[in-house]
Amino acid sequence: MSIITLTTDFGHKDYFVGATKGKIISEFKEATIIDISHDIDKFNTTEASYCISAAYNSFPKGSIHIISVDSERVNNTQHIAMQWDDHYFICADNGILSSLLQKKIAQKIVAINIHDRLKGNATDMDVFVTVACHIARGGLLNVIGKEIDTIKFTQELTPQTISNTTIRGNIIYIDDFGNCVTNISKKMVEDMAKGRKPVVQFSNKTFDRIHRYYGDFISQDAEALKLNEGKGLVIFNENGLLEIAIYKSNSNTVGSATTLFGLKYRDVVSITFTE
Amino acid sequence: MSIITLTTDFGHKDYFVGATKGKIISEFKEATIIDISHDIDKFNTTEASYCISAAYNSFPKGSIHIISVDSERVNNTQHIAMQWDDHYFICADNGILSSLLQKKIAQKIVAINIHDRLKGNATDMDVFVTVACHIARGGLLNVIGKEIDTIKFTQELTPQTISNTTIRGNIIYIDDFGNCVTNISKKMVEDMAKGRKPVVQFSNKTFDRIHRYYGDFISQDAEALKLNEGKGLVIFNENGLLEIAIYKSNSNTVGSATTLFGLKYRDVVSITFTE
Amino acid sequence: MSIITLTTDFGHKDYFVGATKGKIISEFKEATIIDISHDIDKFNTTEASYCISAAYNSFPKGSIHIISVDSERVNNTQHIAMQWDDHYFICADNGILSSLLQKKIAQKIVAINIHDRLKGNATDMDVFVTVACHIARGGLLNVIGKEIDTIKFTQELTPQTISNTTIRGNIIYIDDFGNCVTNISKKMVEDMAKGRKPVVQFSNKTFDRIHRYYGDFISQDAEALKLNEGKGLVIFNENGLLEIAIYKSNSNTVGSATTLFGLKYRDVVSITFTE
Repeated sequence: MSIITLTTDFGHKDYFVGATKGKIISEFKEATIIDISHDIDKFNTTEASYCISAAYNSFPKGSIHIISVDSERVNNTQHIAMQWDDHYFICADNGILSSLLQKKIAQKIVAINIHDRLKGNATDMDVFVTVACHIARGGLLNVIGKEIDTIKFTQELTPQTISNTTIRGNIIYIDDFGNCVTNISKKMVEDMAKGRKPVVQFSNKTFDRIHRYYGDFISQDAEALKLNEGKGLVIFNENGLLEIAIYKSNSNTVGSATTLFGLKYRDVVSITFTE
Repeated sequence: MSIITLTTDFGHKDYFVGATKGKIISEFKEATIIDISHDIDKFNTTEASYCISAAYNSFPKGSIHIISVDSERVNNTQHIAMQWDDHYFICADNGILSSLLQKKIAQKIVAINIHDRLKGNATDMDVFVTVACHIARGGLLNVIGKEIDTIKFTQELTPQTISNTTIRGNIIYIDDFGNCVTNISKKMVEDMAKGRKPVVQFSNKTFDRIHRYYGDFISQDAEALKLNEGKGLVIFNENGLLEIAIYKSNSNTVGSATTLFGLKYRDVVSITFTE
Repeated sequence: MSIITLTTDFGHKDYFVGATKGKIISEFKEATIIDISHDIDKFNTTEASYCISAAYNSFPKGSIHIISVDSERVNNTQHIAMQWDDHYFICADNGILSSLLQKKIAQKIVAINIHDRLKGNATDMDVFVTVACHIARGGLLNVIGKEIDTIKFTQELTPQTISNTTIRGNIIYIDDFGNCVTNISKKMVEDMAKGRKPVVQFSNKTFDRIHRYYGDFISQDAEALKLNEGKGLVIFNENGLLEIAIYKSNSNTVGSATTLFGLKYRDVVSITFTE
């Protein structure tokens, strides 16, 4: 079984995603194609980086991940393919793979060099599809590219340690519930805490308790939980990143972290440790 | 062939749906996964109940339906799996299965009890995926849960009979066309009509004719139909539920039942029978 | 392998698309179902025509394309199936296939006549699914319909040649990036140019250069490209149609052709040829 996943900013209205699947199936009919997201904010490589980093591990080793966000090959931006943690990633060299490379080094990275072999009107996605099907058939990276050592790295995913009492991070992703994911990891907080208590701050809000799960309120009977709908909370999400959330978040009804707190992409979130 | 369907409020932006499919494929690679909806209004169990009830019957017997809406397992809300009409349904015990149980009794219901066997960071969806793959492999419900007799029931889906001349129902679902589905069934209307004529009322509108199909206007030549675009009508939809619709509904152009009539979720719709 | 694609205006919230796939799988379990789009503007047959025309060629010969947009069978609107360029298309006779028939004549067209053989509550989509599965199993068109010579044709997709110096076209599709696709083809422009230079005009804007690719600016170093984000440009898109675009278009950040130029569906775009 060869799994090819798709992460793009193509949206759902246009025929692009369907046509891409048609091209994959035409070239390699055994492929199992799974959508990760097509609603990445247009040209937002930070969002793409977060999504693929959060998602890849749910797929079997050997899976091939095409990430087409800001993928035009101009000037000094090459198309690349990377083998990493026994998965394959295909995208433009625009920083999307930063979040993976922060965790572990790559097994191999190549700058794709098959463009001259394709038809003149081949799109960036055509290049990615050709490479993905090559890998799916068991082909080697060296056949479709030239090995390289370094790729572009974005700093946006790295929170700053201000002092041994303060971490300053940012909101790097707002999910479909309006919950705001930061770049501050549970590991970073635990490493710095040394028995001290983390206090989370953003805008003019302060939270001195991190929930273990969304419904982790003092009382958990049905009525008490009902009263907490629309209340703010902070939690480490399933990717181990600090998230500002609303209990039973719904921007049409009780509100969400974006509507209630006015939080936006890149806003600052700090953690201060107190004795 | 094992079909696993997904009905969630996860939306399309995040990686959650893709990651769920990756987990299913990792655990049971023969699965055929089909999305029913990921745009259920957040935490809206009534919408989820309507959707799964309307959709399940289009799938073969033996299909497994995961419904992840408001599925956190807290306090007295358990995770459940139900065998019903030779289909399987997996969700939290939050009333989602009411619309099915109104039609027919369950073959078996279990409270899922495998949580201690999963990894500590297993999400609610991880539990549902594990159960779905167990069933897909031919496993028994009793292996993954303890049989129970009753589950939670929501009243929201039940219209009220005010007298032998009046039914008072509510809008329980607004579809992507802006058409408004009520909880009043064709069967209920026919049973009560006894030869009398049903008159539909909501807001300050009255409709004394129920269309047999959307284009069921007096004249059906192309020009006459063109003139009816944007006109309101009532109809029993393909699920046999009374629906308030706009002919050629489009909220960007001719308007929809929500934009033209100001109808909202839970608004009252009545039927009165006249001689 | 039998591929069945789906192009509809059903949207993503409702269970309709999932249920359709369930019906296909129930009837023909070997089907590979691929979504082209479910976000066609409601009842907009021009958008549907553009999408299917742009997408079909990415699928293998023999693929079956269901297009369910404005597909109610009333009065003189029949359901049809067409074999064209060794692909199959199933829809209502409402002009959707115009963009294909402009390119090449059909191999065969039939008016579907199986309605009496289906259950009384069969939906339009049920008819299309039955026909698609029949074709997927190798069935002949004549078994499910009566051969016809002509189908409805929409003029909307045809630009006007005003003189030998001017083409007047229209915006026929706005993509998810907000880029505006016109009905003016590269071939038409090249045929009329005869060495003259095309100047593109719309609203009060004039563009005297057509980009070869989105990032085709005079300087292409990273900083120069960064400065061009949000700039307007015209380009022939991958379907060979003139498109008004914004470099790194994002209506939430730098803007899009719809937000910056106020362009709408059907707006006029002209090309004038100058010596």
